[in-house]
Parts: sequence; C-alpha cells; structure tokens
Amino acid sequence: MKPIFPDIFDCIVVGAGHAGCEAAMTASSLGMSTLLLTINADRIGHLSCNPAIGGLAKGHMVREIDALGGRMGIWADKAGIQFRRLNTSKGPAVRATRAQIDRDAYLKAVQADIFNQENLWVFQDMAENLLVEQGRVAGVTTQLGQRFGARTVLVTTGTFLQGLIHIGQSNFAGGRLGDPASKGLSASLAALGLELGRLKTGTTPRLLADSIDFSKLDVQHGDVPPPSFSFHAPFNPLPQLPCHITWTNEQTHEAIRSGFDRSPMFTGVIKGVGARYCPSIEDKVARFPDKNRHQIFVEPEGLNSPEVYPNGIPTSLPLDVQKALLATVPGLEKAQIVRPGYAIEYDFCFPTQLDPTLQTKILPGLYLAGQINGTSGYEEAAAQGLWAAANAFCALNGREPFLPGRDQAYMAVLVDDLVTKGTEEPYRMFTSRAEHRLLLREDNADARMTELGRDLGLVTDDHWQIYTTKRDALNTLLAGLKETRIRPDVATCDILANIGASIPGKAVSLGDLLRQPELTIERLEPLYPAIAQAAPEVLREAETIVKYEGYLKRQEQLVARSAHLESERLPEDMDYSKVAGLTREAEEKLDHVRPMTLGQAARISGITPAAISCLEIHLRKLSN
Amino acid sequence: MKPIFPDIFDCIVVGAGHAGCEAAMTASSLGMSTLLLTINADRIGHLSCNPAIGGLAKGHMVREIDALGGRMGIWADKAGIQFRRLNTSKGPAVRATRAQIDRDAYLKAVQADIFNQENLWVFQDMAENLLVEQGRVAGVTTQLGQRFGARTVLVTTGTFLQGLIHIGQSNFAGGRLGDPASKGLSASLAALGLELGRLKTGTTPRLLADSIDFSKLDVQHGDVPPPSFSFHAPFNPLPQLPCHITWTNEQTHEAIRSGFDRSPMFTGVIKGVGARYCPSIEDKVARFPDKNRHQIFVEPEGLNSPEVYPNGIPTSLPLDVQKALLATVPGLEKAQIVRPGYAIEYDFCFPTQLDPTLQTKILPGLYLAGQINGTSGYEEAAAQGLWAAANAFCALNGREPFLPGRDQAYMAVLVDDLVTKGTEEPYRMFTSRAEHRLLLREDNADARMTELGRDLGLVTDDHWQIYTTKRDALNTLLAGLKETRIRPDVATCDILANIGASIPGKAVSLGDLLRQPELTIERLEPLYPAIAQAAPEVLREAETIVKYEGYLKRQEQLVARSAHLESERLPEDMDYSKVAGLTREAEEKLDHVRPMTLGQAARISGITPAAISCLEIHLRKLSN
Repeated sequence: MKPIFPDIFDCIVVGAGHAGCEAAMTASSLGMSTLLLTINADRIGHLSCNPAIGGLAKGHMVREIDALGGRMGIWADKAGIQFRRLNTSKGPAVRATRAQIDRDAYLKAVQADIFNQENLWVFQDMAENLLVEQGRVAGVTTQLGQRFGARTVLVTTGTFLQGLIHIGQSNFAGGRLGDPASKGLSASLAALGLELGRLKTGTTPRLLADSIDFSKLDVQHGDVPPPSFSFHAPFNPLPQLPCHITWTNEQTHEAIRSGFDRSPMFTGVIKGVGARYCPSIEDKVARFPDKNRHQIFVEPEGLNSPEVYPNGIPTSLPLDVQKALLATVPGLEKAQIVRPGYAIEYDFCFPTQLDPTLQTKILPGLYLAGQINGTSGYEEAAAQGLWAAANAFCALNGREPFLPGRDQAYMAVLVDDLVTKGTEEPYRMFTSRAEHRLLLREDNADARMTELGRDLGLVTDDHWQIYTTKRDALNTLLAGLKETRIRPDVATCDILANIGASIPGKAVSLGDLLRQPELTIERLEPLYPAIAQAAPEVLREAETIVKYEGYLKRQEQLVARSAHLESERLPEDMDYSKVAGLTREAEEKLDHVRPMTLGQAARISGITPAAISCLEIHLRKLSN
Repeated sequence: MKPIFPDIFDCIVVGAGHAGCEAAMTASSLGMSTLLLTINADRIGHLSCNPAIGGLAKGHMVREIDALGGRMGIWADKAGIQFRRLNTSKGPAVRATRAQIDRDAYLKAVQADIFNQENLWVFQDMAENLLVEQGRVAGVTTQLGQRFGARTVLVTTGTFLQGLIHIGQSNFAGGRLGDPASKGLSASLAALGLELGRLKTGTTPRLLADSIDFSKLDVQHGDVPPPSFSFHAPFNPLPQLPCHITWTNEQTHEAIRSGFDRSPMFTGVIKGVGARYCPSIEDKVARFPDKNRHQIFVEPEGLNSPEVYPNGIPTSLPLDVQKALLATVPGLEKAQIVRPGYAIEYDFCFPTQLDPTLQTKILPGLYLAGQINGTSGYEEAAAQGLWAAANAFCALNGREPFLPGRDQAYMAVLVDDLVTKGTEEPYRMFTSRAEHRLLLREDNADARMTELGRDLGLVTDDHWQIYTTKRDALNTLLAGLKETRIRPDVATCDILANIGASIPGKAVSLGDLLRQPELTIERLEPLYPAIAQAAPEVLREAETIVKYEGYLKRQEQLVARSAHLESERLPEDMDYSKVAGLTREAEEKLDHVRPMTLGQAARISGITPAAISCLEIHLRKLSN
C-alpha cells in the first residue's frame, strides 16, 4: 500500500510531460520521495506533437536514457507501431532507431508506471509560486491554495508557461490546443531574478484517416523484425502499421502564399522565436522559393485512432488556408481536419542561468528541464528530466554531481550546449552537434552509460546482468578477433576465396581481415566458429569497433588531449575580475556563464585559447 | 471515404459530452449533415463525475434512449465493469439497471462510434458566437475565427459555460478540473435575449486505489450474469469488478464542520444553486446534524485505472479538510487524493424559454440540451440530446415534432417539467416525478419507444427485427395466459399443489392463477409448456403485465381521461390577454411558458382547472 503523502518531499516535479515523467521516475527510483504535480492527471505522458519517438541523435538519447535506467525507451517499445533503423547503409555514428507511437498506448504505459511507482505521488493541481527559505527552494504553492514543501523542485512546464495559441489571426491562452495554460509560475520565476524569453513552436493539422485517399500515397513499412530501443526490457511489439508519403507541389505553395498576409508568423503577431530546424510549412515556402515540393509523411496516430498526423506541414496559417493547401496535395484533396494546426508561444528561461547540473544558479534546489530550457523535442526533454533528477539526488545526498562528458553522451552535449552557449531558439539535437559523434553511437550507448546508471542506483540487477553479459561477450569476441591469426596457407586461402576476402600477403589477425571493406563479421564464421553463437547486437558492435578502430582511436586521442580541461574545476565563487590578462568581454562572458570546468569555459563563444591560458595560470596561483 | 466537409451543416452540435454525443449520433443517423464542435477531441465522451450509468429513473431513460435507437445503453454495455439490477424485490416501476463504467473504455466506445459515423464531422474548436440570419439561427463562429453555417444549432455546454471551479477559498476558471472553460458563448446567448442563471455542482476527490485498505470495507459484487441496458445490441461484458462500501462517522463530521468557515458553500462565495438531491458532504452534515453516518460507495474507475471514486462525498471543502475527513473513515485513513473534490459554477438557460421540442422560443433553429437546461446527470443529458436532435430533424423536414407524452417516457416527463415548470436548481430525474410510473417501466421501454424510433428512422432493421420478435412472443404468451383456462380437476389439482398454487374454486385462466402472489410465471410451466421456450425478459414482462393488470388499467384510464388535453394544441401566437376569464397571474404565466398543448398548460404551477376551462372555451371560439 502507498505510504501516506509526506509533509516535505525530497523532490517536487512540476509538469508531467516527457521531462517531468522521466524526472519523476528517476527521482523516485533513487529513493527520493517525489510529488508529481500535473494540471490534468488524464494527460500524463501525452505526446503533444507528432506520434513518433527517436530518429537521428534523438534515438541516441533514448538509448542513453535506457542504458542509465530511465524509461522513455521502455515506454516507446511498449507503444511502438512501426520501428525502423535509419541510415543502416551509412556510417555507424548516424544509424538510429525511430518508432511511430500509438499515442494512447504510450500514455497508458507511462501512467501505469507513474501510478505504480514507489516513492512517487501524483496530484492534480497547478504550481503557481515557488517557495524560498534561507536562500534555497522550499516548495511550491498551487492554484488550489496548497503549500507543498520540498527539498528540491524540478520545473518542466513544456509549452504551458503563459502559453498563447495562434491560428491565423486568432490567438488565445492555452498550454496545448484544448488544454489550459499555466499562469502564475512565470511571474514567480521572474521574481526570483530569472530572465525569461519567449519561444514558439508549431504542430500540424490532424486529419481524419477516413478522408484520405491512401491509394495515391507511397507506403513505408517498418523493419522486420522491428528493432527496439531498450537494451534490457522484454520486447513484445504491438501490431505494426505502415506510414504513407505524399508531397506538396507548386499549387500547394501558391495556396500557402495566399495566406501570408493573415499568417501570425509573417504579420509580426508571433514574437517568440521558432526553431530554424523544424520550420512551419509557410516558413519553408517563404525561405526556399525554389524548392517545388516538400515531403508530407503521414503517420498513424494509433492502432485504433481515427486520425493521422501529416508530418511536414506544421502551420499556423488560417484554417481556410490549411484546408486550401491540403486540397492541392495528392491523396489529401478531401482531407478533413479534425484539429487545426497551430503555433504556440510560451515562456522559457535562458539556460545559461543554469549550472551544468541544470540547477538554477540563482536558487539552490531549483532545477529546470525540457522546453523551459529552450529545447525542442520529446527526447531532449526526457534526457534533461533524468539529468536534473539525478543531480538533485546527488546534491541532496552529498554525492559528486552526475556530469558525463561530451565524449560520453549526447545528453551531455545537450546540457553543456545549453548552459554554456545558451540558446535563443528552440534547441534540437543533431549528430553534428557532437564533436565526438563516432564515439556516441546508439549501439554503444549501453557501454557508455550503464555503469554510470548503476553507480547512481538507477540500473536494476536484471538490467545490470543483461548488460554485463553482453559486455563480456563483446570483449571475448573482440579479443578473439584480435588474437586469432590466420596464415594464407592453401586451406585458409580456399576459405578466404569462399567468403569473398582478399588474400593477405602475410599472417594477419581476424580483425585485420574484417577491416576489408567487403567483409562482414558473419562471413568470418568458417574461420572463427564462435561467431555463430554470438548475439546479433554483439556482432554488429564488434564489427563497428574493429572496422572503425582507426577513427575511434583518433577521436579518443582528441578527447584525452582536452581531458585535463574537463577535470579542472573552476571555483564556484571565482572572481573573474581578478584573473590577469582577461579581456573585459571574456571576463563578462565568464562571469555570466560561470563555467564549472575549464573545458566548459573553453566552449563559451568568444573565449579564446589565450583566455583559457590566463585561467589556467590563475588557477595554479590559487592552488599554491 | 468521408465526403468533404459541407459548407452549411444541417446541424451543429456544440459540446461532446453525453447530450452532445447522443445528439450528434441522432442527427447524423437521421441523415442530417452534422458538425460536432468540441474543445478537445480527446475528451469526447468523458465522464466528468462518477463512473456509473443508470440507476433508478436514470436506467429507465437509458433504456428509452436505447429503444429509440440512441447510443448510451450500447456504450454503457461496452464499458460496464459491474452491472446490477436494483430493487428486484420491489414493485416493477422502481426496478432499474445500474452499471459501473470503465471511464477509458466508455470514452473509446463513444469516440469509435462518433468518428465512424456517416454524416458526422468532428472539429476541435470552441463555439463563441451564434449567427442569426433572417430571424433564424444560421451557424456559429468560433475561437479560431471560423464561421460554420448551419440550419440548426444544438448547444450542449454542460458545466463549461463560464465555468468557475471552487476548492476551499481558491477559485478559477475551468470547464472541469484540468479543462478550460467556455467563454464568449454565454454573452452570445444573452445577447439573443435568453436569460441565464447560475448553477453549481460538485464532485468527490479521486483516490489512489493503492492507498486504501480494502480489507476494512464491505464488498458489493454485481449480478451474475450481468444485466445489460440495450434491448438489441450484442452484449459481451468486460471483466467485472466489485465496489466497496464504507461510512463516515462523528469524527468525520467534526473534521468537516471544522472547515465550514473556509467552505465556499457556506461563506457565500458560491452563488450558483446546487442540487438538493445530490448534496455535498458538507451540506449533508450541516443539514442532517442528527445523522451519525453517511455511506461512501467506493467505485472502481476502470479495469486498469489506479484511481477509485468515493461516491457520497462530493465536496468543495479546502484540501486539508478533504484530507482530514478521509483520515477518519475506516479503510480510507491513508487515502491519497490524486485529484481534489471541487464544486463548479456554470451558466444555464432557464428552460421555460424553450418550447417542448427544446428549441429556444426566441431563435428558431437553436436547440439546447443537457446541463445548459438546468439538469444534472449523464442520462438526463443524453435523453435531451436525442430529443432535441430528433426535433431539429422533424422541424427541418416538415414533420410533426417528436413529442412522446408523460405517460410514454421519463424523457417526456423530464422535458415537460423543464419547459413547463422550469427549474431553479439542477434537475434530476426520479421515478416520483412521473405520475404514471407504473406504465414507465425499464422492462417495457422497448414497447413504449421502439415504434417511435422506427417512425423517426433511428431504429435499424436488425433492431426492429429483434423488437418485433420479442413483442410478438410477448403477445402470444399473454394471449395464451389469458385464453388457457384450467379446471380444478384431480390431475390439475395435483399439479397446482405441486407448484405451490392455491386451488381455485372454479375454472380460471392461467393469468388469473398467476395473479396469486406466491406464483411466478416459471412455476406455470407444467400447465403451459410454451413457457419453457420463452426468453426470460418476455417471461418477466408477461408476469408484470398480468400481475399488475389492475393497476396498469387504472393508470391507463387516468391517462385516457386527460388525453384530450394533451392533443389540444394551443396556437403559437396565442394572445392570452384575449382569453376571457383568466386572472392576470394566469395570463402572465401562460404568456411566459407559451405551452404547446392544453395538457402542458394545465401543468404550469398556479394554472387552475378554471383557467384551463377558459382556454378550452377560447379555443372553441377560435375554431369556429
């Protein structure tokens, strides 16, 4: 039976979207008594935008979350209705998993876990005000006039903070179309001294499936068998559905242009900054006038949903223009809009006001995660939720902060970019943001993160067992490939010819052989029968490590070269005006960001290697 | 494939609760092109208050709706997780079916039908303004700035019109806790000249099942096999769950009283009028100080829901008082509130502004149904939704209005009470409101309504076939019981003794025999073997008709006596000042209600038989 509601929680999580749910599960799994506050308990785990999880760089983060003992991968596996592995023909850094999600099944999976979780209490209410005691956060007060005490508060408000919805020339308050906005909390954050900005995002109209002529659309099926996200959870996929593809055309673009004069994007009504990388269809048409078509990826909303999601046409054009543009698209000529596309403006906090644990510098104990930090995307949100909750746990328990490096995880790249460089537009993760992306593969997310999760206390015994078994099998295989040498004698040459390998001029290891571009690890089986017994994911990973050994080594060397910078901590109360040789600009920037390490300092835009040298000298003086 | 969105709809239904969904299904089934406008398509068919449908007088209406070809009974059958037949040991008028409902399964069943329905389009948007053209309703404009044309508009706004939620001393706008309120439309209705009032209703806190000690609670199981609502739909019940029962006590009442000074009910903050028949727990404690306990009926929220609904303690007391009162209740001592109980105030239209078709007198084509007419309850709402939609159809198609009489249906009693007497508090149906309640049994709802539904065009061929088969079987059985006479000869006396009957002094019909109080129809089988072949519902109904023949005849005679009043129509433009002999008060009341028939006029409070005579004389003059 659930123990009684505590008087003071270890952690209050405000908001139950992807950041909030991951944070609540993390905090409570780590033994923190946790309160999850949500405006509507029925909407916990709702996917606000498209019904898909994963993809390039995002799938990577889902697997990092999973390796750490987080939940998003498990939930996506439970609710996925089409799984694909992207870029299988490209380099291993950019291979990624993406799943179409049954919205309803996802929400059910999330809610089942949230409500069954130990140490976690759910309450439907709206946080309005942060409590401060003795310079620390002390809880929240709510719309219902409640006062909930807490040692840490983790705010994940998504698009709800002063949300303002736009469709054509109409606009009105809302957190999502059909859900109320969150009021009050913005003012409370601002009163603490946090600087808030305004961002904008958008979503597509939702269409009635039965009004679409699918015979005119291309079909895209998922992979068989479907690839899953989780490294450790059992995978029993739901029935799988196809997606469909169609395209806009010149007529569509004409219809769109005809609405520019009533578009809140172009008439100056929307002040918030939108994501360059996830533009509205009107934006695409305006910015790329030469492009004569844009893809529309028609995604199912669920196994039993009457609606589909036409990905690719997020828009806040007036509804008549939304209808007119759809009418020009093959297969969508008679598409019925069930819910209009819309843009939403919302408040966010400039993330350079956070330290690398995602704690606000201004108020100890207050953490922010997800869209409130200026990001975009479910996976970015979930990663931050886990990160912030883990750090709240470390801080409360006197542990070293949970701070994997940029060479260890995309989520580290994400957080480091946010708190070091800040963002002025919705920040979305890309593989190109990671300078060491060959090290940050989806496939080795377990090797990168599971031990960290185990140290934290998030990785269960079963999970750990599965991980170590795979790790050991991989190491045994890699050792075998390295140590097993073959000579080009007659018998071996026969085998080599059979498997399509070039005959080496001298004795080589199996690893050397595998580096021949045309060879796959499976082909080596006649030379190394243990391969037949190895699990497919072990084979794939071994193959990547061997084939890319040179590249990987070079990246590791680069990481090692700057490692000392990452480990060199800057004092929290560092007085940059005392650092000899810094320009005034560098001093101001450093003082604003207040980096935690020299490495972080080096990544602040405008901070030169010379400035870093000044800091190094200063630190050496301080330690004498 | 769904045809394209019409430019002008035959009917726009505003709101997708119980009134709206039933109205939308009715209108579209009758061939009207129908638009269902909802604030949030995910919430179509949501049960706002307790997870149950049916019960005394309400189960009766569900079966009337079902017999007419409506949907509520079918949806409840699909989502029911406990079915009971109430009052089986009491008279046939008060026997009724009640089902606990899986909230999620209900919503899914409703949405599946709504989205698959021909002639019905769903759009997520908020109606804000009614359009008028040439003295008729012409459509609506919406929050999104849309203009939807329509021949009729049917408004079913539930608690959303200017909804104001109260918990303790907090209050804020909302249509339900967690859902936004509807703004704008109230002003539009008022601008038309409709007089709006303010009502109040309340709901209980929702509790985490896992925080309740069920071992301390009494268990109540459903009937086996579960009885269903629908006369015609296949019935494959979900797995069935028990309910639990506990009680408040003096300590509870003390805790409640301690919150009176912060109760919006008692401090005058809530202006809206609540239902006397569905009082809050604080009301019960205040009004019945001598009662030392009140029942709490703990209802499951669904097969997989983590929450339960403690029926019996709706409250808007401050949350700390809600917690304190729960802590005193056996089994609920540690109950965790997931969602607080709350009261909500909302706008309604005084229903005497409607004619008996539920059309506003002030604006032809505008119909109102559900809580906006001052009622309370899912079933009351659904019945009005069907009624209004059927009448909109009749009006558009030049058919006689759909106006069953008070001797035919509870829904007729409901509508007649509303439009004739009005209501100043939420109106709930009771069997005692029907003067002919022995005629209005749940079991004969099919005999009362199916033909009317068939005439309208709502009853499908399959449904009609099932009905007529049962009707014919019943008539054959009744004829057999009436015509088969038995003599008390030796062989028969043996049988009679065997079945526990008293031996009649002379030859009697089987019907006469059945009227012996100790006999059931099944016992007569040795004398009339066809009984073994008859369906149970046919046997029950035949038994009721035979056993209560005398009472039924008397009620029918009463009905017949006033039948001429019901059929005597009053002209729409009747000038009551011209009616000789009317008192000024009677003239004003008649002019305000503008009854459709003499029968309706006679039920207006304060209209005397003398006034009716004056009207009869006046009508006779007019027709000369």
